[in-house]
Amino acid sequence: MSANAVAPERAAYYAQIARSGMSPLWESLHALVPKSPRPQALPAIWKYAQVRELVMQAGSVISAEEAIRRVLVLENPGLPGKSSLTPNLYGGLQLILPGEIAPSHRHTQSALRFIVEGKGAWTAVNGERTTMHPGDFIITPSWTWHDHGNPSVEEGGEPVVWLDGLDIPLIGHLDAGFAENYPEATQPVARPEGDSYARFGHNMLPVRHTVSDPTSPIFSYPYARSREALDTLYRNGELDDWDGVKLRYVNPATGGWPMPTMATFMQFLPAGFKGKTYRSTDSTVYCVVEGHGAVRIGEERFTFDPHDVFVAPSWVPVQLEAQSDAVLFSYSDRPVLAALNLLREERIS
Amino acid sequence: MSANAVAPERAAYYAQIARSGMSPLWESLHALVPKSPRPQALPAIWKYAQVRELVMQAGSVISAEEAIRRVLVLENPGLPGKSSLTPNLYGGLQLILPGEIAPSHRHTQSALRFIVEGKGAWTAVNGERTTMHPGDFIITPSWTWHDHGNPSVEEGGEPVVWLDGLDIPLIGHLDAGFAENYPEATQPVARPEGDSYARFGHNMLPVRHTVSDPTSPIFSYPYARSREALDTLYRNGELDDWDGVKLRYVNPATGGWPMPTMATFMQFLPAGFKGKTYRSTDSTVYCVVEGHGAVRIGEERFTFDPHDVFVAPSWVPVQLEAQSDAVLFSYSDRPVLAALNLLREERIS
Amino acid sequence: MSANAVAPERAAYYAQIARSGMSPLWESLHALVPKSPRPQALPAIWKYAQVRELVMQAGSVISAEEAIRRVLVLENPGLPGKSSLTPNLYGGLQLILPGEIAPSHRHTQSALRFIVEGKGAWTAVNGERTTMHPGDFIITPSWTWHDHGNPSVEEGGEPVVWLDGLDIPLIGHLDAGFAENYPEATQPVARPEGDSYARFGHNMLPVRHTVSDPTSPIFSYPYARSREALDTLYRNGELDDWDGVKLRYVNPATGGWPMPTMATFMQFLPAGFKGKTYRSTDSTVYCVVEGHGAVRIGEERFTFDPHDVFVAPSWVPVQLEAQSDAVLFSYSDRPVLAALNLLREERIS
Amino acid sequence: MSANAVAPERAAYYAQIARSGMSPLWESLHALVPKSPRPQALPAIWKYAQVRELVMQAGSVISAEEAIRRVLVLENPGLPGKSSLTPNLYGGLQLILPGEIAPSHRHTQSALRFIVEGKGAWTAVNGERTTMHPGDFIITPSWTWHDHGNPSVEEGGEPVVWLDGLDIPLIGHLDAGFAENYPEATQPVARPEGDSYARFGHNMLPVRHTVSDPTSPIFSYPYARSREALDTLYRNGELDDWDGVKLRYVNPATGGWPMPTMATFMQFLPAGFKGKTYRSTDSTVYCVVEGHGAVRIGEERFTFDPHDVFVAPSWVPVQLEAQSDAVLFSYSDRPVLAALNLLREERIS
Repeated sequence: MSANAVAPERAAYYAQIARSGMSPLWESLHALVPKSPRPQALPAIWKYAQVRELVMQAGSVISAEEAIRRVLVLENPGLPGKSSLTPNLYGGLQLILPGEIAPSHRHTQSALRFIVEGKGAWTAVNGERTTMHPGDFIITPSWTWHDHGNPSVEEGGEPVVWLDGLDIPLIGHLDAGFAENYPEATQPVARPEGDSYARFGHNMLPVRHTVSDPTSPIFSYPYARSREALDTLYRNGELDDWDGVKLRYVNPATGGWPMPTMATFMQFLPAGFKGKTYRSTDSTVYCVVEGHGAVRIGEERFTFDPHDVFVAPSWVPVQLEAQSDAVLFSYSDRPVLAALNLLREERIS
Repeated sequence: MSANAVAPERAAYYAQIARSGMSPLWESLHALVPKSPRPQALPAIWKYAQVRELVMQAGSVISAEEAIRRVLVLENPGLPGKSSLTPNLYGGLQLILPGEIAPSHRHTQSALRFIVEGKGAWTAVNGERTTMHPGDFIITPSWTWHDHGNPSVEEGGEPVVWLDGLDIPLIGHLDAGFAENYPEATQPVARPEGDSYARFGHNMLPVRHTVSDPTSPIFSYPYARSREALDTLYRNGELDDWDGVKLRYVNPATGGWPMPTMATFMQFLPAGFKGKTYRSTDSTVYCVVEGHGAVRIGEERFTFDPHDVFVAPSWVPVQLEAQSDAVLFSYSDRPVLAALNLLREERIS
Repeated sequence: MSANAVAPERAAYYAQIARSGMSPLWESLHALVPKSPRPQALPAIWKYAQVRELVMQAGSVISAEEAIRRVLVLENPGLPGKSSLTPNLYGGLQLILPGEIAPSHRHTQSALRFIVEGKGAWTAVNGERTTMHPGDFIITPSWTWHDHGNPSVEEGGEPVVWLDGLDIPLIGHLDAGFAENYPEATQPVARPEGDSYARFGHNMLPVRHTVSDPTSPIFSYPYARSREALDTLYRNGELDDWDGVKLRYVNPATGGWPMPTMATFMQFLPAGFKGKTYRSTDSTVYCVVEGHGAVRIGEERFTFDPHDVFVAPSWVPVQLEAQSDAVLFSYSDRPVLAALNLLREERIS
Repeated sequence: MSANAVAPERAAYYAQIARSGMSPLWESLHALVPKSPRPQALPAIWKYAQVRELVMQAGSVISAEEAIRRVLVLENPGLPGKSSLTPNLYGGLQLILPGEIAPSHRHTQSALRFIVEGKGAWTAVNGERTTMHPGDFIITPSWTWHDHGNPSVEEGGEPVVWLDGLDIPLIGHLDAGFAENYPEATQPVARPEGDSYARFGHNMLPVRHTVSDPTSPIFSYPYARSREALDTLYRNGELDDWDGVKLRYVNPATGGWPMPTMATFMQFLPAGFKGKTYRSTDSTVYCVVEGHGAVRIGEERFTFDPHDVFVAPSWVPVQLEAQSDAVLFSYSDRPVLAALNLLREERIS
C-alpha cells in the first residue's frame, strides 16, 4: 500500500501516534516480513588484474605504521559507504612491504587472512608467529593480540598481499565492538613457529586441554595440506554436481568452525566442470586461488581468474564453472545463520 | 581524521580506488573498530497511560482482518523509520477486539507475546490454542503457523492488548526472512489446550521425544507460576544487589532459551529496592507488569508504572529502583550475543 | 568348543601360555563376543504383600542409626550374593520409623528414592529438606551430603518405606566408589523446603545459573504433578501401543536425565490395556504405584499389585497389561548405554 | 562385621528374608560403598621379549582362518578367567602371517589395533583398507565390518603382530554385545586407501558432513605424525612433571575420543625423565613403543622395554621413568568414567 493511498483520517492518526514514537505495522508489514530475502547487497566481482596496481600504489600513499592496517576495503555497490561486502562481512586487500610492521592490537571482531601473493611476511597471534605463503588460511580470533610484519629486503622480504575477511559489519550491527592497542608495536614472541600446530593440528590434543572458547587453537591452515586433501579426493572420484570437491576448515578441538562468526571453505573444480545451481541464506565471499572459470550469481555472470574476489548475497542463485582446474577459497556468515536456526539451503537444478 | 584533512594527492587516490569499488580502511578504521560500543539506539520509554488511548483508537482505524496484525510499532528515536527498538529487536502493542481474528501465517521471525491487559483471547500455535491472561509469556516460534482470536462480546470477549516482541530487525539484517500465509483464517485445532504443557511443562518429557529444534515445545509460561517462583525465592531471602530476584525462561527440553534469538526474563524488585548499576552487550526491552519505580539508563532517568515499556541499548549502564513491589518482564538479544561469543557484562557499582 | 575337544598339543600350548598370563582367544571368542546379549540377571518380582511384613520386622531387628541405612536389599536370583537387581542397578526397601535419623554421608553412587508408603519423613540434600509423600521421586545425586529423618510419633510421624535405587553395582564394576561420613548425624538446614523447586522447577532458571554438573538441581519430583501430566495426556487421547502414556523425568537445566547413570520413568496404563512387546539393552526395575495388572518378561509372567517391584534384564522381551488403571514407576541404566552409544531398542510386535 | 558376629535372632531373620530374595544392607554396606576404590585388577606387565616366541608359535598351533582372530589374550592375574586386563578393557597380541586373512565380522565391541612389529598387513573398515606400520593406531569402531589381511611372502608379506585393545569386558558387563559374520571372508573395497584421511584428517571436513555418531571418521592415526608432534613439542620446551609430553588422539569431527568407550594416548619421556606420581579412576593399559625405563604402579615396580605391555588399575598410584628417550602408547576407559561424571584424578607428588 503506497503512502499516498492512505486516507486522510488514517494519515492524521499516523501523525498522532508518530508523536508518541509509534507507527502502524500494517503499512510496513510486507516490507518487514517479506516472502523471501531481499538483500541490498549485489553480486559483484573485483578483478585482481585491475586492482593489483592500486593496491601496490597504496604502498606509496601511506606507510603501514601510519595506516595501522594498509587495506583497500572492497565495498559492495549495493551497500555504499558501509565498508561491507555483505550485511555481516567485510573484505579488504592488505599490503605489507618489506621491513614494515602493522602494529599489535586486539578487537572483538574476528579476522581471517587469506594469502594472495608474496611470501615471508608473518602474522603473530597469542605469542606465536606464522609465516605466510600464498593459499594459506590464517586466523586472528576475536580479542587476541595480533600484529603483522615483513622482513626487510635484505632478509628476503617481498611485498605481500592478502585478503582480510572480518565480521566488522556484524559486530557493528550488534553494538558489540571493543578494541585495544598493544603498548608496543609487536607483541613478545613466546613460542616457536609451529607450536600450536604441533599441539593441535595432528588429530591429537594435549591431554589436559579443555575447550573454553569456540575459536580454533591453530592459527594457520597451510595451503599445501588443503590442496593435497582436495587432490586426493578428486583422484578418488569425489565430485559433487554443485560443489565439485569442497571441504570446510574446522576447529580441531571441536569439529566446529575455526571462528564463531565466519565459515571458511576451499573447493576444487576440475577443468570443464559446469556446476548446478544452488542458493542459501548465508552470504559468501569467494577468492580465486588458482585457475580460470565463470560464476553466475543471480542475473550476473562473471568470468574469474586467479586472485579475483566475488560475492554472492543471501538466497541469490549461484552456479560455478571451471575452464581450467580451479581452486576457490570462500568465507561466509554461515555460523551465524546456523547458530540462530536460520540457515536454509536449496539445490535448484 | 576528518575528510577535509586529506591531502590532495590522497584525495585523488581515494577517488581513483572508489571507481574500482574500494575505499581506504585507514580513514574509517576508528569508526569501524571502536574502542567500545556506540549504539545508535537511545534509551527510551513508552508510558502506557499515554499510549493506551491511541492503541484503543486503532480498533476503529482498521480491522484486525484488514491489518493482518493490528499493532502500533514502538520506534526507537535513535533508529527512525526502522520499526526497531534495538538493532535486533522489534516491539509493538497489539490490540484484538472481541470477535476478531488475526489470520494464520508463519515466518522465520520468532515472536513472543507478553499479555498486558484483558483476558480470554487466544493464540494458536501448531494446532494448539492457548488462552491469554495478563502476565503470561507466550511464544510463536520461527516458521510455526500461528493465529490469534478473541471470543465475541456475547461469549465474554473483551479487548486484549499485548506486547509483541520479535527479531524482525535481526532477520532483516541477516537477509533471512521467509513468510507464508495459511490458506484459511485459522489453522485447525488438533489438540486440547494445555496438551503441550502437560507433555513438557512438569519436569518430565515424552519418553521418545528427541530434540530436533532449539525452540521450546511449550508455548505458554503462565504468570501464576512465574510469580509464585519469584515470591517463594524472595520469601526465602534471595535478593541480588543488581537484579533483585531474577529468573530466565527456559526451553524445558534443553535448558536453553525458549527461542534461539531472544532471551526472556522476569524479575521481582521489592519496595524500596535501589539496585546497583550494570551493563551488557545485549540490548533489552522491559515491560512493567506490576508496581512503580524508576530506571536510570545512561544519562536518562525514567519513572515507570504498570505496562510501561522501556529500552536499554547495548553497553549503556542500567540501574533499577522500586517504589512499590514491582515485577518486570524483559526480553533481549542475549542468545545472539552468547552464540557468537560476544556477550560481555559488567557490574559497575 | 568344549575343553575336552582340545587336542593334546594345543592343551600343552595353552598350559604354556597360561604360565605367561595369556589365554587363547579362539577358545573363548564366541562367549566373549556373543551374537546377542546373554544376561545372567533373571526376570523376577517381589510381591509387596509378602515382603512388607519382613520390612516392618527390620524395625525391631536393628535401629536406623546402627544400620546407617535400614534396607532390605532385593537380590536378583541370577546374581546371587551381588546385592544387585541388574548388572548396574541396586534396589532395596528402606524403612524409617518415627523419631529416627539415618545419618548424613555422601558417596559417588547416585541414589533415587521412590516413596512406597507412609508420609512425613524427609530427605535432606545440599542443605535443603524435602518431605516425602507416596509416589514422589526424590534424588540424592553423586557426592552430595544426604540424610533422612522421620518426625516423632508425637509430631505425627509414621513408618515410611521407600524403594532405594542406586548404581552401586555399576560403580563397583568401574572401581569408582568413594564415600565419606558427615561429622554429625544431620547436615545443617541452609534453605527452606521448596527453595530449589522454586528456583528450577517452573520452566525458569536463575538468571546467572551455569550448568557445571549433569545432575538435576531439583531434588523432588512430586507425584501430584507427574500424575496430573499423565492424566491430562490420557484424557487428550495419548496412548502408545507399547508404553501406554509414558514420560521420563528430566533435569530441567539441561533436558537430560536427572542423574548421569540412571533414567527414571512414570507411565499410565488404562484398565484393559494390553501392550505390545518390546526389548532394549537397558535393564529396568519397575515399582507399581497404583493398580493391578500383569507383565510378561521373557518366559515369565507375573501379576502385579501396588508396590510390587519387578525387574526386566537387558534384551529380554517385555509386555505389560493392566487390569485396572495402573501407574508404574521405573528406573534403568539407559543413560549409561546411551552415553556409550550402546542403546538398542526393538519393538517386536 | 563378620558373619559369625551375627546374633542368632538376626541370623534367623536373615535366613527368612533370604527366602524372599532379600539381604540386610547393613551387613554389606561397607563393602558395597567403600571409602575409595578397591580394584581386583592388579598391576602387571607382559615382557615382550618373553612372550614374543609364544605369539609366533601360535602361528603353527592354529590358522588365522580357523581362529577367526589368532590372539593371545593378556589376562590380569587379579581377574583370572575373565579375559580382562581391567574391569572394562581387554588386551591381546594378534598375529597374522603372510597370505592370511582374518575374516570379516562386526560387533558392538569397539576395537583398537596398535601395531607392534612387522608391516604391510592391512585392516579394512567400512570398505577402506589401511596398511599397518609399527606405531600406527588404527580403530575398528563398534558395529563396523572389519577384516585383516597380510600379503603373501611373494608380495613382500611378513609376520605382523599388533596389540588388540577392546572394551569386551565392559560390553559383557552391560549385556550389550551383538555380533554378525560377513557372508564372505573379506568385505569389498569401496574406496582407495587414504580416502577417509584425506576427507577428515587435515583439519578440514566435507562441507556437507554431519556428525551422527561419536566414532572417528578416520581409521588410522599414523605413527609418523604422532611422533612428529611429540618431537616438536619437546623441542619447544614442553615437559610436564607427571606426563612428559602427552597427547590424546581425537575424533577430528568432534574433538572427542576416537571411540566412545576407550581413550588413547601417546607420550614422550626424555632420557632421564623421573615423573611424579598420580592416580585416576580410569584403568590404563600401556604399550611401550620405543625406549627403556621403569614404572612404579602401587607397590610394584617394573622395568620396561620396547613392546612391553603393562596395566595400571583404577586409583593405584603410577610413576614413570625413562632411561633412554621413550615413547608410550596407552589406552584407558576414561570416556566411560567421564561420561558418567565419575572421573577423578589426583596428582600426588
